[in-house]
Amino acid sequence: MEPQRKLINSVDNCVDEALCGLVRSSADLCMLQGHRVVIRSDLEHLRGKVALLSGGGSGHEPAHGGYVGAGGGAGLLSAAVAGGVFASPPPASILAAIMTLHQAGSSAVLLIVKNYTGDRLNFGLAAEQARNRGVVVDMVIVAEDCAFDTISKAGRRGLCGTIFIHKLAGAMADRGCSLDQIVVKMTQVLKAMGTLGVSLSPCSVPGCRPTFELPPGEMELGLGIHGEPGIKRSTVTSADEVVRMMIAHMTNPDSQACLPLNPGDSVVVCVNNLGGLSCLEMAVVTRAAVMCLESRGLMVVRVMSGSFMTSLEMAGMSLTLMVADEHILELFDVKTIAPAWPNLSRVCVSGRDYITVPPPTGPGAKDDTHCEGPLSTVMRKSLEHVCFTLLNKQEELNSLDRAAGDGDCGNTHAQAATAIQEWLQSHVVPGCPGKLLSVLAGLVQEKMGGSSGALYSLFLTAAASHVTEGQSNAAAWTAALHAGTEAMRRYGGADPGDRTMLDALCPAVDEFMKLNLAPPGGKLVALQAAVQKAAAGAESTRYLTARAGRASYIPAERVTLPDPGAVAVAAIFGAVLESLQGQD
Amino acid sequence: MEPQRKLINSVDNCVDEALCGLVRSSADLCMLQGHRVVIRSDLEHLRGKVALLSGGGSGHEPAHGGYVGAGGGAGLLSAAVAGGVFASPPPASILAAIMTLHQAGSSAVLLIVKNYTGDRLNFGLAAEQARNRGVVVDMVIVAEDCAFDTISKAGRRGLCGTIFIHKLAGAMADRGCSLDQIVVKMTQVLKAMGTLGVSLSPCSVPGCRPTFELPPGEMELGLGIHGEPGIKRSTVTSADEVVRMMIAHMTNPDSQACLPLNPGDSVVVCVNNLGGLSCLEMAVVTRAAVMCLESRGLMVVRVMSGSFMTSLEMAGMSLTLMVADEHILELFDVKTIAPAWPNLSRVCVSGRDYITVPPPTGPGAKDDTHCEGPLSTVMRKSLEHVCFTLLNKQEELNSLDRAAGDGDCGNTHAQAATAIQEWLQSHVVPGCPGKLLSVLAGLVQEKMGGSSGALYSLFLTAAASHVTEGQSNAAAWTAALHAGTEAMRRYGGADPGDRTMLDALCPAVDEFMKLNLAPPGGKLVALQAAVQKAAAGAESTRYLTARAGRASYIPAERVTLPDPGAVAVAAIFGAVLESLQGQD
Repeated sequence: MEPQRKLINSVDNCVDEALCGLVRSSADLCMLQGHRVVIRSDLEHLRGKVALLSGGGSGHEPAHGGYVGAGGGAGLLSAAVAGGVFASPPPASILAAIMTLHQAGSSAVLLIVKNYTGDRLNFGLAAEQARNRGVVVDMVIVAEDCAFDTISKAGRRGLCGTIFIHKLAGAMADRGCSLDQIVVKMTQVLKAMGTLGVSLSPCSVPGCRPTFELPPGEMELGLGIHGEPGIKRSTVTSADEVVRMMIAHMTNPDSQACLPLNPGDSVVVCVNNLGGLSCLEMAVVTRAAVMCLESRGLMVVRVMSGSFMTSLEMAGMSLTLMVADEHILELFDVKTIAPAWPNLSRVCVSGRDYITVPPPTGPGAKDDTHCEGPLSTVMRKSLEHVCFTLLNKQEELNSLDRAAGDGDCGNTHAQAATAIQEWLQSHVVPGCPGKLLSVLAGLVQEKMGGSSGALYSLFLTAAASHVTEGQSNAAAWTAALHAGTEAMRRYGGADPGDRTMLDALCPAVDEFMKLNLAPPGGKLVALQAAVQKAAAGAESTRYLTARAGRASYIPAERVTLPDPGAVAVAAIFGAVLESLQGQD
Repeated sequence: MEPQRKLINSVDNCVDEALCGLVRSSADLCMLQGHRVVIRSDLEHLRGKVALLSGGGSGHEPAHGGYVGAGGGAGLLSAAVAGGVFASPPPASILAAIMTLHQAGSSAVLLIVKNYTGDRLNFGLAAEQARNRGVVVDMVIVAEDCAFDTISKAGRRGLCGTIFIHKLAGAMADRGCSLDQIVVKMTQVLKAMGTLGVSLSPCSVPGCRPTFELPPGEMELGLGIHGEPGIKRSTVTSADEVVRMMIAHMTNPDSQACLPLNPGDSVVVCVNNLGGLSCLEMAVVTRAAVMCLESRGLMVVRVMSGSFMTSLEMAGMSLTLMVADEHILELFDVKTIAPAWPNLSRVCVSGRDYITVPPPTGPGAKDDTHCEGPLSTVMRKSLEHVCFTLLNKQEELNSLDRAAGDGDCGNTHAQAATAIQEWLQSHVVPGCPGKLLSVLAGLVQEKMGGSSGALYSLFLTAAASHVTEGQSNAAAWTAALHAGTEAMRRYGGADPGDRTMLDALCPAVDEFMKLNLAPPGGKLVALQAAVQKAAAGAESTRYLTARAGRASYIPAERVTLPDPGAVAVAAIFGAVLESLQGQD
């Protein structure tokens, strides 16, 4: 099996190029010449303060370079050292970073190190070398993995909780706290923190095969961020169940790595994407974590959710929980401009009302009851005849549609007709034509479905405001038809000639507008002329190439029948004319 | 083939739960009751201003809910409506959102809609319905896809460029600009913007099979954010080449969708993760994009890189380019607290010096030349004998290591010995013992490698400062040995009894410390006693269970020989004694 193809230039250069990509896009960051070190651009702000240096293997982006933050009063890390992918950085680069921070006038340098032997040794060596050069250095070792019930000699692994230490220590350093104060506080914080990961896939180091095999549908619990083995393999269950199981494991009092959580405790939660989990899944998991913690009587004070400490493209996530008192929360909330730190709210997550009630918007929201008027009878008759006609034409329209679409054009029109018939049986027809059109728009939107339903509804909605009880003459109806047609064109994106319902509608409306200026022979004559134009327009679609709708995906030479949508529109016009003629 | 297993609770609920996850974790956001609408918590800030509403299908998280931003003067969207995965939201929910924003006192509502038929119709319908209810509504349709050279009737697709419109329109609305001013500006911005995507994998809608098939090692160029087909399939090449090809395609003057870019133009770049690309790859691509644009004479003014408009877990990315004048840039830079908007610097990317020069830190950085002293000869003899001894023991140490490790313990010690021998040939031995130890620390760190190299280097570095030319009596050497041992323990994480080199080292150093208080018979007698303790300690490891290092992974019953690291330490002590005895 060949290694997975990645979007990089070369295995050898990918780490350096990734660091370059970060620094080039973040003007507050610089590279340290000759080293894989990301460092603040504004080193002058470190004078007299404790500088923070973290780092470790690459492949965990945005860690650690993304947590370097510049700007007075907005700091996080002062610098970050990167090793190769999943490899500890060399002591020489760590020392170079320390000496640069020292030279910038910082009072001391605090190293924040994840508990892996390589990192401990290399950061330790650089620390001793820096001490020999007169630098005040101390180290905080992050070891908050909750996977193993029995803690081995090597101790717990350092995982995503590292970024909490970056944040809190960064806030303290920015405020001018001493090295000792920061170390004491972080040691205390580390005892109230735990992380557990789960993954549905392995990852692969550039140029290498996947770090482990995991059959589809299985997940591995408790794995490290380098694809080290976890503690349990099982079938992927629901997000809620996975989260519940993880939190239960993390807080298991029989475990040496137990994070004790008591009802009433305030917790900060980090839901960390290990790389390849979709943002949709991440959000579902985030909800599950908040709900699960609240169900245990905990107060969730802050939640961060995103990619913070990844394992390349691993499709998994980790949960980090930190018990936070007011002091810790205040430090956590200090704003920072480090590129990888997200915009977080400073409001407590639990106990907040997060539902807004919308104003009523249902059909007829403004007035639910309609009054009949002089036009009610004629409009009811017309509507009944339109419905009758569409139901009669159901098979004809389906048949036309089978030639160029999915064959349901008759059915969708029949659905609308049936819905209108049912409505007519139990409602009065309002005397205001605009109100009737609004009701029809709602019915069609709800019952007809598909693009046709939306287009008819658009037409009716846009037309509605132009015809009222007091204003329903030919000019008003023409304006309504025109507005409806324009809305269809605007939002539907089709034009006459594209082989759509517009090819029947537009010629009819144009004729109306023309005759309306001086209708020779009255309204019915104008309508008659419009009906003829609609029928001719529908027939003409036989020779048009579809440029919109489903028929546009079918070769033009295979489409030889008229467009069913245009035929339906012509039929509706015809039915209205027939009903009005019958009443003369 | 079964659909891919995802970390959700159910296909039916995943969209609602994902929205809940977003809103629960962002206290500035609320849900609109009964709808998939994310809305600002602080609606009172909208009074008299234009409200912005966007939305579309789900599966593109953090779009669009993550771009809803609350807080006076920090707005982005006022609300976002979500449909099902890759499905347009229903008009009723869009209308509910519009009416809520209207009721909050906004002067008008601007709809920002991606150019897909379903979204156009549904947002259009809601817009017409809102107009009938007296709301001032307008719509901006985002259509910035550069994939197709010939623009079809349906127009260009709306992609990640949508978030630039959110940002710029948000900044204008916040400043109190009128609806017309915003629409005019956005229409202008849309003409100076383009996006192109590429992917190495398909994605899969929850409960469904992948949207398309793509053989490993192939990539598809120009695909949409719902897995719609692209324009070209080819082998994955280098990140630089892929980016170069994408930008060439986007700016191809023969294309109807060409984004014209001229040397000297200022561009804002968005490198968007389509979901499953690793952050490492994203950073490599970001570098490639900046370099490619600069090589074409463009001024890259801002870069954002991350997951902004995803296609579930698709392992791909899109590039969005926007030509930006000073006014646009000023709007772009307005701070926002929307959860999905990243911390961005306001400094121009191109033309910035991003290299910091570290102070020199090489071995002997403080003084590069060493002076011989009275101790130089004896120390040279001791070192020569230690090297000779370790080279003699190479095979014995390898053989011990093969039983419990990777069999290279003799080789790594031989590498160190050879490096020291070579150094001795061309250098004087400094009269100051501390300086010699520092030199040795550097040699061992550089040439020995592995954990052993780091541990010896740590020992030597920590010991160095305790012995100087003026202070090299037994007490000083004892302090040095103690400091070195403590550093090894602290950073290495092992203790005596763990079957490591400490099992020889610690008893020897303890003996030294004891005898040093009152050495009966002088230094050599004390050293002799220490050598015996080291040898006994090394031998005792035969009966110890490994709790650190590589041997800890091997069943204890299979480890019956002494630890090679401890044997090496005992040999070094022995060699020093022999060399000193020979000189007596």
